[in-house]
Amino acid sequence: MEGMLPKEYGYVALVLVFYCFLNFWMAAQVGMARKKYKVFYPTLYASESDNKDAKLFNCVQRGHQNSLEMMPMFFMLMIVGGLRHPCACASLGVLYTVSRFFYFKGYSTGDPQKRLKIGKYGFLAILGLMICTISFGVGLLRGGEPRALF
Amino acid sequence: MEGMLPKEYGYVALVLVFYCFLNFWMAAQVGMARKKYKVFYPTLYASESDNKDAKLFNCVQRGHQNSLEMMPMFFMLMIVGGLRHPCACASLGVLYTVSRFFYFKGYSTGDPQKRLKIGKYGFLAILGLMICTISFGVGLLRGGEPRALF
Amino acid sequence: MEGMLPKEYGYVALVLVFYCFLNFWMAAQVGMARKKYKVFYPTLYASESDNKDAKLFNCVQRGHQNSLEMMPMFFMLMIVGGLRHPCACASLGVLYTVSRFFYFKGYSTGDPQKRLKIGKYGFLAILGLMICTISFGVGLLRGGEPRALF
Repeated sequence: MEGMLPKEYGYVALVLVFYCFLNFWMAAQVGMARKKYKVFYPTLYASESDNKDAKLFNCVQRGHQNSLEMMPMFFMLMIVGGLRHPCACASLGVLYTVSRFFYFKGYSTGDPQKRLKIGKYGFLAILGLMICTISFGVGLLRGGEPRALF
Repeated sequence: MEGMLPKEYGYVALVLVFYCFLNFWMAAQVGMARKKYKVFYPTLYASESDNKDAKLFNCVQRGHQNSLEMMPMFFMLMIVGGLRHPCACASLGVLYTVSRFFYFKGYSTGDPQKRLKIGKYGFLAILGLMICTISFGVGLLRGGEPRALF
Repeated sequence: MEGMLPKEYGYVALVLVFYCFLNFWMAAQVGMARKKYKVFYPTLYASESDNKDAKLFNCVQRGHQNSLEMMPMFFMLMIVGGLRHPCACASLGVLYTVSRFFYFKGYSTGDPQKRLKIGKYGFLAILGLMICTISFGVGLLRGGEPRALF
């Protein structure tokens, strides 16, 4: 099987694991924010009426939660699109991971607008991954055409 | 590698991307509902005590969030089950995507009951995808048996 | 294609479907808790000021939601890592599924601390799956090396 996969699919796998580390790092940041702003389990979002730091905490929490919401799409597009375009997908995956880091950093300043300053490039990466996956699907249906060059 | 995958796996990939578009459309609907009902970031769910339209907004939000919760399972079953039953999985994927659209439309009327009127067929699609994935797993373990005919 | 996958990848597929059943069981538990503690759709988390059982309900809900948050990572690592280490990944997948059951059971006692008593082994399983996926990626990039023995 492995002999059948493009060798460069290995980069796709490594970038996927790299994203897992970012995800755990974000979870740890939320854990620290829980302690700092005194928001205890099982509460997910703090309420403005109970906690003066609610907005600050919720910005940290949403930075992580929004990343979790995008994660399945990111993983799926990497796994499938990477079968045809491993190098392009691995590169887009690095772009996505880096811009998610800045999305989270921006969001956790407490000003939701700042999440998109660099974080918006993550959406560009997703768009690129979607194109790779469409190209994989169309190429497979057409059959026999030469592999794309990137 | 691509020569090893059933040609029809291309349909699976295209349906997966198709679902991504639905997902972005739902996210955009939530974004518009945020403006209409004045629910600002980072708030995820509006509170009845702050906002008279809380229930309406929360129905739109839950329509999207519930779809996000099902998404990883849908993606995984398509990716794995489709290796053996690409046409069945692609068809079930279309059924799932269409019924998720109606789930969301039903939920965003503000009456949670309406989400299931057409939306319930999505669960049927997931059940079908689970059967395809079990069939893939069992077929692989048995080895050498002829490919199923659908 | 199926002839190219390690036969034991069938176990990976079956464990993935097994997890889907656990997920539906958790969703059903939350549905029952909704009735018992009178938390109606579209409310996701009960508010302490409206409902004296809010904490109990929220513990059940978080037990499920946290499992949903981990699910994409679990699925992706199983799908990719399992290509090289199907038996190790399938075993880790069983460990993960069983410890998620106890995570949920522990959380739904209403004491968040209890979620980790057995549930913590799920994180060990994820760590193992990450190592398998890294090994898959590195092995593919190096090429031609003999398959690992587990």
